Amino acid sequence: MEKIKESPLFWPVKYKAGVMEVLNETLIPHKMHYVKVRSTKAAVGVIREMKTRAFGQFLVVLYTFLLELRKIKGVRAKDFKAQQKVLARIKEVASSLNKSRPTFPFSEVTGIVVRWAIMAIDAGLDIKSFVNQNIEGYLESIRIKRLERVGKIAELISDGDSILTHCNVSGELAMAASICKKQKKDVHFFVTETRPYFQGAKLTCWEMKKMGAEVTLVADNAIATLMADKTVNKVIVGSDRSCANGDFANKIGTYQIAVVAKYFNVPFYVLTQPSDKIRTGKDIPIEIRKQDELLKYQGKKVFRGRVNAFYPGFDVVPHHLITRPVPIRVTENE
Amino acid sequence: MEKIKESPLFWPVKYKAGVMEVLNETLIPHKMHYVKVRSTKAAVGVIREMKTRAFGQFLVVLYTFLLELRKIKGVRAKDFKAQQKVLARIKEVASSLNKSRPTFPFSEVTGIVVRWAIMAIDAGLDIKSFVNQNIEGYLESIRIKRLERVGKIAELISDGDSILTHCNVSGELAMAASICKKQKKDVHFFVTETRPYFQGAKLTCWEMKKMGAEVTLVADNAIATLMADKTVNKVIVGSDRSCANGDFANKIGTYQIAVVAKYFNVPFYVLTQPSDKIRTGKDIPIEIRKQDELLKYQGKKVFRGRVNAFYPGFDVVPHHLITRPVPIRVTENE
Repeated sequence: MEKIKESPLFWPVKYKAGVMEVLNETLIPHKMHYVKVRSTKAAVGVIREMKTRAFGQFLVVLYTFLLELRKIKGVRAKDFKAQQKVLARIKEVASSLNKSRPTFPFSEVTGIVVRWAIMAIDAGLDIKSFVNQNIEGYLESIRIKRLERVGKIAELISDGDSILTHCNVSGELAMAASICKKQKKDVHFFVTETRPYFQGAKLTCWEMKKMGAEVTLVADNAIATLMADKTVNKVIVGSDRSCANGDFANKIGTYQIAVVAKYFNVPFYVLTQPSDKIRTGKDIPIEIRKQDELLKYQGKKVFRGRVNAFYPGFDVVPHHLITRPVPIRVTENE
Repeated sequence: MEKIKESPLFWPVKYKAGVMEVLNETLIPHKMHYVKVRSTKAAVGVIREMKTRAFGQFLVVLYTFLLELRKIKGVRAKDFKAQQKVLARIKEVASSLNKSRPTFPFSEVTGIVVRWAIMAIDAGLDIKSFVNQNIEGYLESIRIKRLERVGKIAELISDGDSILTHCNVSGELAMAASICKKQKKDVHFFVTETRPYFQGAKLTCWEMKKMGAEVTLVADNAIATLMADKTVNKVIVGSDRSCANGDFANKIGTYQIAVVAKYFNVPFYVLTQPSDKIRTGKDIPIEIRKQDELLKYQGKKVFRGRVNAFYPGFDVVPHHLITRPVPIRVTENE
């Protein structure tokens, strides 16, 4: 596989010797700053404050286990009692991470780690080194599979395409854009602002430009116009959680894009992490974020006086609106 | 007809003795300030800077003729040459107003005034007093018809309804909400932010609260979720321009609400000003506003660096997506 230039959002969390560095996405595009994280508590903090999001959360979860395991002194594999303590600690960390935000499948990821720990005990292996090894191998395989998917995305894109995207797909689309450019495909990207957090305006435009793509920012309100006028001819979005039946959750606004795309016969592609842990979209818990995130912008109230706001962070798109999923398997079975 | 409490947005422009006072809607909800306008140039200015919008533009147009006619010294009805000069001046004013913004049908409104002036000349009447009288009578009839429509909107709303609206319909919906409250109907309104100008967050929430309505602000991205969950059961929006076939233009974002409402079988009502001056939506010119209005918020760039933005101010909803129009005739034929 040809070496692909990486977007900073492709792997937004780095880990080295007990310290995790998390790209603070809330400061982008104004500043590229990495927050140092040394504990589970701090890890939950960066997730709750949305300093990292989407794939970044997955990395934070796995690296949190690495840094917490590092704090545990060497324990003999045969010391059953001590190994049980390590297992208990892993479960504690998992439990804290699971409570950080509701929509992303934290328990699925932490569950994998807990199962590795149990497997180690059952096999009489040292949990710490077994889990460490597994996490590192798992992350490496994920990196490879995501890079492969970047290639698949580039294949989906034809010369002359005009692609609509929403929110941010953590580097993959921007990197696919960079491949298309090398392939001399003339491609244009339309990026929604993605209110209330402006992930489209702040993250996607920024990384797209960094990767040399042609980008135009539009309001979330412009979808129907762009499709009616045939200004865009394809939609590619990410997903925060997928179900066995193909339904998926993604940033609020994705559902209406899917409905409008269906109405105008615009192909709608979604980057998924297939999972059979939950059956249908009805089983995905949707995070309701604080009213203030809608009522205030840059700390200043948009509306003076008292008004209620309702801000579901995600919506669930039923599978029949998807033209084709572009999956990556992130379960331990692959 | 029972006296209805008026929203400040219902008649946002006042006129007295050569001075027009235009409610500066860009300062709402923080301040209620009226801009004094004494010339056609200033009138075009308040329209272009969107200090007033929608129905306010209609009022500015008509009051501009009143204030310009007032500057003309008394001319005898029989002095044909002098009367021709008045007609020329009226045409000049019309021409300036027509160029202010593209989507609102300025030429239809100014055309009415020009025709009155020609009628006066043909009948040997004094243009100034004839046109003055006609404008005043016309405005009075519009006020009555709009108040009637407020009553019709209240009839559309049933006890227990949860209504979605977009942008701002210049007082009518808020006043209908106030009637519903008197009628002891339990009604809730969901108001979209309406990016990029936030008319929903700023104007609609403000006047709804003023009129005592129950309001919840949502992101423009939340439409599909609100309908999928049956959180809203009706949509009521305004229109900036209507066509003979029933297509209409309204604030960008209306089209996708209409498509999503159709998908979820949610009734979609639109307050129209029927007109047969243009045949279909294809003939409505859509204003493309400046990129900066999307790239900046409160003077500060959302995205640092160079990125293009595309900001059509309106979209056109095809008539087949409308459940029922709630018309008001604003042509001179009524």
